[in-house]
This record gives sequence, C-alpha cells and structure tokens, in this order.
Amino acid sequence: MTNPVPARLLALGGASLALLVSPLSAQTPPPPSAVDLAQRGDDLAWSITEDLTTEIGQRMAGTEAEAAARKWAVARLQSMGFANVRDEPFDMSVWVRGEEEAWLTSPFLPQKLAITALGTSASTGAKGLEGDIAYFESFDALVAAPDTQVKGKIVFIDHQMAPAQDGSGYGTYGRGRFTGANVAAKKGAIATVIRAIGTDDHRNPHAGGTNFEPGVKPIPAGAISNPDADQLVRQWKRVTAGTASGPLRMKLVLTPRNLGTKKSGNVIAEVPGRDPAASPVIVACHLDSWDLGTGAIDDAAGCGIVAAAAKHVMTAGQPRRTIRVLWAGAEEVGVFGGQAYFDAHGTEKHAVALESDFGADRVWRIDFKLPDSAKALSDRLAAAVMPFGVVRGRQPANGGADIGALVQAGVPAVDLAQDGTRYFDLHHTPDDTLDKIDPVQLRQNVVVWSAVLAILANSEDSELP
Amino acid sequence: MTNPVPARLLALGGASLALLVSPLSAQTPPPPSAVDLAQRGDDLAWSITEDLTTEIGQRMAGTEAEAAARKWAVARLQSMGFANVRDEPFDMSVWVRGEEEAWLTSPFLPQKLAITALGTSASTGAKGLEGDIAYFESFDALVAAPDTQVKGKIVFIDHQMAPAQDGSGYGTYGRGRFTGANVAAKKGAIATVIRAIGTDDHRNPHAGGTNFEPGVKPIPAGAISNPDADQLVRQWKRVTAGTASGPLRMKLVLTPRNLGTKKSGNVIAEVPGRDPAASPVIVACHLDSWDLGTGAIDDAAGCGIVAAAAKHVMTAGQPRRTIRVLWAGAEEVGVFGGQAYFDAHGTEKHAVALESDFGADRVWRIDFKLPDSAKALSDRLAAAVMPFGVVRGRQPANGGADIGALVQAGVPAVDLAQDGTRYFDLHHTPDDTLDKIDPVQLRQNVVVWSAVLAILANSEDSELP
Repeated sequence: MTNPVPARLLALGGASLALLVSPLSAQTPPPPSAVDLAQRGDDLAWSITEDLTTEIGQRMAGTEAEAAARKWAVARLQSMGFANVRDEPFDMSVWVRGEEEAWLTSPFLPQKLAITALGTSASTGAKGLEGDIAYFESFDALVAAPDTQVKGKIVFIDHQMAPAQDGSGYGTYGRGRFTGANVAAKKGAIATVIRAIGTDDHRNPHAGGTNFEPGVKPIPAGAISNPDADQLVRQWKRVTAGTASGPLRMKLVLTPRNLGTKKSGNVIAEVPGRDPAASPVIVACHLDSWDLGTGAIDDAAGCGIVAAAAKHVMTAGQPRRTIRVLWAGAEEVGVFGGQAYFDAHGTEKHAVALESDFGADRVWRIDFKLPDSAKALSDRLAAAVMPFGVVRGRQPANGGADIGALVQAGVPAVDLAQDGTRYFDLHHTPDDTLDKIDPVQLRQNVVVWSAVLAILANSEDSELP
Repeated sequence: MTNPVPARLLALGGASLALLVSPLSAQTPPPPSAVDLAQRGDDLAWSITEDLTTEIGQRMAGTEAEAAARKWAVARLQSMGFANVRDEPFDMSVWVRGEEEAWLTSPFLPQKLAITALGTSASTGAKGLEGDIAYFESFDALVAAPDTQVKGKIVFIDHQMAPAQDGSGYGTYGRGRFTGANVAAKKGAIATVIRAIGTDDHRNPHAGGTNFEPGVKPIPAGAISNPDADQLVRQWKRVTAGTASGPLRMKLVLTPRNLGTKKSGNVIAEVPGRDPAASPVIVACHLDSWDLGTGAIDDAAGCGIVAAAAKHVMTAGQPRRTIRVLWAGAEEVGVFGGQAYFDAHGTEKHAVALESDFGADRVWRIDFKLPDSAKALSDRLAAAVMPFGVVRGRQPANGGADIGALVQAGVPAVDLAQDGTRYFDLHHTPDDTLDKIDPVQLRQNVVVWSAVLAILANSEDSELP
C-alpha cells in the first residue's frame, strides 16, 4: 500500500485550515478545529470500519445480517454523541445467492471456474444447465448480434477493463453486467456469463446487480473472474482455430432465490445546528454490502469517514446548520435506501448533499454542483482541501447513489472524489475485507471531509438554499 | 510484474556464452549455442505452460485429469523430438476434496470463511461439526500446550509468514500445515484449522498436504485465507478482552474422501548422448498439481523450463551425455513420482540432478553439491550464468523433491534458485494460473537452464560420476 499524502502535508494543512475555518484574533490561540481533531491521531473512521466488518461482516440487503448492522449502527452513533439517531425502516424484495458452480465441459475435460451469480439472476435449478457458449468480445457486440447467434446458448460477454483513477471504466464495461443478461434473454439465450467487472487477476469474481426489463423473464446470470475468463478465451481460441475439436461448452449451477418482501432501513443521526431555521447538510454512505466479502471498502469505510467527519465538526463546536448523517440501507441491490430517504424527506429543504462510496483511498479532487450564490463558498472549499493534495475539478459534482434522488431534485452537491485506481480490484469481491484499507489514506479522507463539512455546516443562507 | 533482467543483459550474456560453451576459432562464426537458441524469441516454455494449463487445467495426482496430462505430455515431448518418451506408471492412494465450508458462529452472527481442506484431512461428514476454538499463536505454542487446552476443541494455528526471496519461511511456518493436525489430534482436538501458509491477502486459501503419524486417527484439517484468519483473530481478541460475550466457535463442513489405489505415472523423455557409456544428466519437474488452480507456477512452468532447455541443448548439437527429462507424477501429495523413479532407476548411475519447482520468476543464485573433481566445472557454470544476474551461492545445493531420493543417495546436484518473493502469494491457491507468469522472467529461466545444461551435458567423466 502506498502513502501519497506525506504526514508533513497533513500537519501543515491543518495549521492553515484552523485559520481558514476559525478566524480568531492572533492573540488568542484558536480552539481545535474539526481538521485539527481529525489530524490528532484520529481512529474513528478506522474503528467504525473495523468493528462493523468484524462484528457484523457481510450485510446483504434485507437479511438478518443487515438488520444486525442497523442495530449495531444505532448503538454506535448514539455512543458517539449524535442526536436523533433512528432506524427508518422500509420494505424491499430480497434476493440471496445459493450454490454457485461452473465448469467448462468441452472441448477438454471439465474444468471448474470461479463464478458468482449476479443479483436478480434466475436459478438454473439444482441440477444446473449446460450449453454451447456464444462468445461476444463486448457488450456492444452482443447488442449487435442477430438472435440466431444467441438462441439456446450461454452468452459470454468479454471485455478488457483497465484501472482508472476516476473509476470511469465502470460505466463503460459495467453495461455487460447491468443489462447484458437482459439483452441476451431477449435474444433467446439460456444463460449469461460475463467477465467480471473488475481489474484484478484473482479468482474472486465480482458480484453486482443485473436488471431485467419488465416482461423479460430472468435467466441465470453469473460473472467469472478475470483468470477464468482468460481460460475460457484461450479455449475459445483453440476451438475457433480448429486445434481443439468440439464446441466450447459450459455447465452452470446457480441457485439463487427470492425471499419475498423483507425489512431494510436507513440509519440516521444528526449533529443539531445552532440555527433551527437553517437547512441541513446531508452526508451519506451505505450500510449494506454485497455478501462475498465484509464490505470494508464498499462501504463500511464510507460510513466511517462521514461519521468521523461529522463527529469532529460536532466536537469543534456546534455548527450553524444541522449535519444529517445517512447510513443508507439496501444500496447495492437497487438504491432502495436512497429512494426511501427521498420518499420520506425529499420535500424537506437540504442545503447540500455529499456521499462517500468509492473505497478508502485518498480524496484527490473536489467537484461542485452549487448555486451561483455559492461562488465564494466553493473557493473557500477548494482552498481548504488544497493542502491535502485535493485539486479542484472542472466538471459538475455527481452526488452519488444514495443522494441521487435528492441531487436529481435540485439539492446542491459536493463530490470528494477518491482515487479509484485499485477500487475495481476489490469491488464486490470476497477480497473486500478490512486488510485492504490503508489507514493513512483513510485518515486523509477524514481530514478532507472534516475541512469541507466544517465549512458547509457553517455556510450562510445567502450561499446555500 | 517486474522485469529484473534487462533485455540488454540477456543479449550480451548470450554472446559471451556462445564463446564459453562453443570455443571455435575466431574465423568461423560459431553455430548457435543452446543459449543463443533460448534467447532467440524462445516461447517453448511458455507454450508448454499455456497449453498444459489451458487444455488440462488442474492435475490432481491419481485423477483422470492427471492421466490426461500424462497422455498430453507424452504427445508433446514426442512432438518436440525427444527420444524414449514414455509413461512409467505406479500405484498410489488417492485423496480428493469434497464440500468445504466454514463459519465463525459465535460470538457474533455466523460469518462464512474461505477454507480449503488439507490433503489427507478426515471428513466432518456432510452435516459438519461445530466447536469452540482453541487459539494458538504458532505451531510451537500448540506443541507446548497441555492436552486440556485442546481436547474437544477446534485448534486454530496462527502465525505471521512474510515473503522471503529464498522461500525459507515455508520450512518454519509450514510446520503448522505439515504436522499441526497430527499434533492436535494426539492432544484430542476434534479438528484443526490453520492460517494458510501464504503471504498474500486474498481470500483464496492455500491447499497442501498434512501428515498423520501411523496410529493417529486423522481429524478434519483445513486452512483459511489470511484475511479470514485476520477476522478470526479480531473476533478472538474481542472475546478475550470481554467486549464480546460468548466463546469463539466455528462450524466446519469438509467432506474429502479417499478413492483407494489408483494409477499415476512419471513421464520421461530423453536427449540421447553421443557417448552411451556416459551417465545421464537428469532434469526434473512435476506434472501433477493441486486442484484449486491450474498449476501454472506449480509446476507447469518448471516442466516448460526443463523441457525447453533440454530441447535447446539438443538443437544446438548432440551432447556427450544423455539428458533425461523427468516430468514426475504425484509430487504434491507425497512425492510418489520421485520415489517411483528412484525405485525404478535409483541403481542406475546419474551424473547430476536438477529440478525446477519454485515458480517462474528469475533464477538469482546457483548452488552446487558436486564431487571435488567438479571444481573447475562449477567455476565454468558460475561464470556462464553470471551474465544473467545469477550469483554463486555459498551453501550446498538441495536438489528438490522429485530428485530428493537420488540426491540423498549421493547423486550430485545443481540448484538454480528462483526468486520466491511472490511464490507464496500463489502457491497451492486458486490463483495459481497462467496470468501470474511473467514471460520475461520465464525466458530468463530457460536461458540460464540452457547455459547450465549445455555445460553439464558436455562435462567429462573426470568431472562427474
């Protein structure tokens, strides 16, 4: 693991920032700012991340584990001194994985692959299914293919995803996962297997949801790891080159099932503001995780970061605006928590929304989607994070999944973009575990978030709605 | 992946070596040496490794897959032009894995672990077993513990294995795997789980054999990945600190079974020497693999390296001594192939034995265990490999598993020690797949082996027995 933020810079930045956010007279030593607190050996985010991943582990949406996580979260946030801590429940349809096995059965002796079912995948039944593979080098190639190339076959979607600091490959390559099975089902495929949406070379496939349009009957859908996809491609090349005889065939056993409607919930906690009339700042993450790992980078760390920053702002002195911490439920399987929050609170005024849901590596860019009235505010924010190596972006902030509905509805947003270079090595895999988190980069996140949150929570009504 | 051997050096070394091994007059350009051939875009080792791992995949000893690998190997070695290619069969007792699952069931909600059974592990039965965990920080701590600490419990053996270039940690930490279950069984444990013998942080546990003494009834024995062992330790610390209530408990389902006596075999091929009276040079690897990966670094690459080097020596001109290539069967599960070779050929004279079974990263050291008569020979060998970054070691050569019985019986040995820094990231895991091999380092192996083999196969009777 690397440490791109020298301790020297963290310390220097803190000194400058104390002046920026607490402009007291030169005679009086300023009280510790939120940034000072974040820099002084902060382990709040780490301990939240460690405890949640150790004591709960995976937190698949709608399951007993997610319910236990909510109970844990309420107790933890209360013990940190937050106000109005509560679990706001909602109903959701729950899908859980069952057995998952796959073999290449032809043209060579059977070889077992590392596979995982995609969320909403249909079941193959316990006996599984077997079929010829229809190979597509990309999602676009599948879309362009005539039905005859697909009908009655197991579609395989290949691609070459490379790591990118901003994670932008997820949109491009992710299409194979998001809707590949739907496209294949409409063309008559009996199942879909994709090269997992990931940049690692380990035999831990990346899970994730796939979506079938209304009226399209779901088919079994899985993802195999990069080394397994490489193996499939090598066998495919031997078949097409005629150096191996017989078709490329796969056997699949995927037995996920739908458990019907269950409870999930959003855990909410607040730092009450001095001015009850001022609209709140909302900071979000999601408490649920996929089930293969312990959801450390996705998204225990995010919950640790936003709660630690809010706690530091609270400790530094009551802010003008309320800070509302949202640990959303059921994000992974369809952003049900974000929608439930919007349904319950969307008509309330929010000053600005932020989300941490891209791992635990350092923040490298700040982006804004703010009203014109916030020009000076955005300059203050950019100046405050610059000492920590965070640059000002030239594109509008996106928001994030759990605050997506709010931002869509016009709530201003600030993004603290994290370095995603290795995010898709781990995302949704069994390898998403605590040991993957670099404590130094996690702390840089908390420092940057504390700086930003202190400024936003003390912003004027003339600056934010 | 890194490239520690600049192409420049590979080229320069070759020029020098052509002179060393083919001392012709300055007027006549020398014919290409084995090293020249190895340097000219050699892909023999790669193609053997790729084809074996792709067309056969895992090759668990005594199984249909290993038999297919032998058939493949005979055809491949014949097609390369080797003489006397044959499969020398032997009987062995075969163990195969079944279901393997584990959960931490207390003090928190059940959490699933990544586990694999160790070779010769007993079965838990399909329903599994559950018990309190007796934690030991090391194999030595288990040995020192009174029976009362172990009786009726699931023993967990922890340790901290760090990567080492020479792989020496395997001996120290490996004891927990080699005999930990035996020690625990004698003290009354119901099962043993070890922190896998590995240096990676992926949730792919390292398989491997464990040995029970005659008279000790085998118990279920498994290995969990490093991240899972970390999780277990974190839960253990919470139990001992009293911050979690209830004992640390584990449920295990391991259903391996013994298939009885089956056939394995050694595949042998030769480069016949000019002098039928001269004793042969034997170069070995093993054809079988553990079953979780495709046995790319362990040991398809070794078979590729030794066969490619022998082929290059053959192409460069018939050597004085016969080169015998041994692709041994059933190494992983107890060196049955090496023993079978010794039983069949141990009374024949062998000039010297070498083995490649430590991955595919570069050779960095040459070690000797040669008769006094070979002083000048060892100097020639050390000089020949120096241009490729290989240093002369100060310790005697070990030989290797498959030639172990020969070396034990007095056959001279040369070791071409490979860089093992990342070997135990991959060893015996699902991640031992083709993509982990660095083609540049693999080629350096072939170049070094070609240089050494050319000299050894042309050595005098006054130098080697």
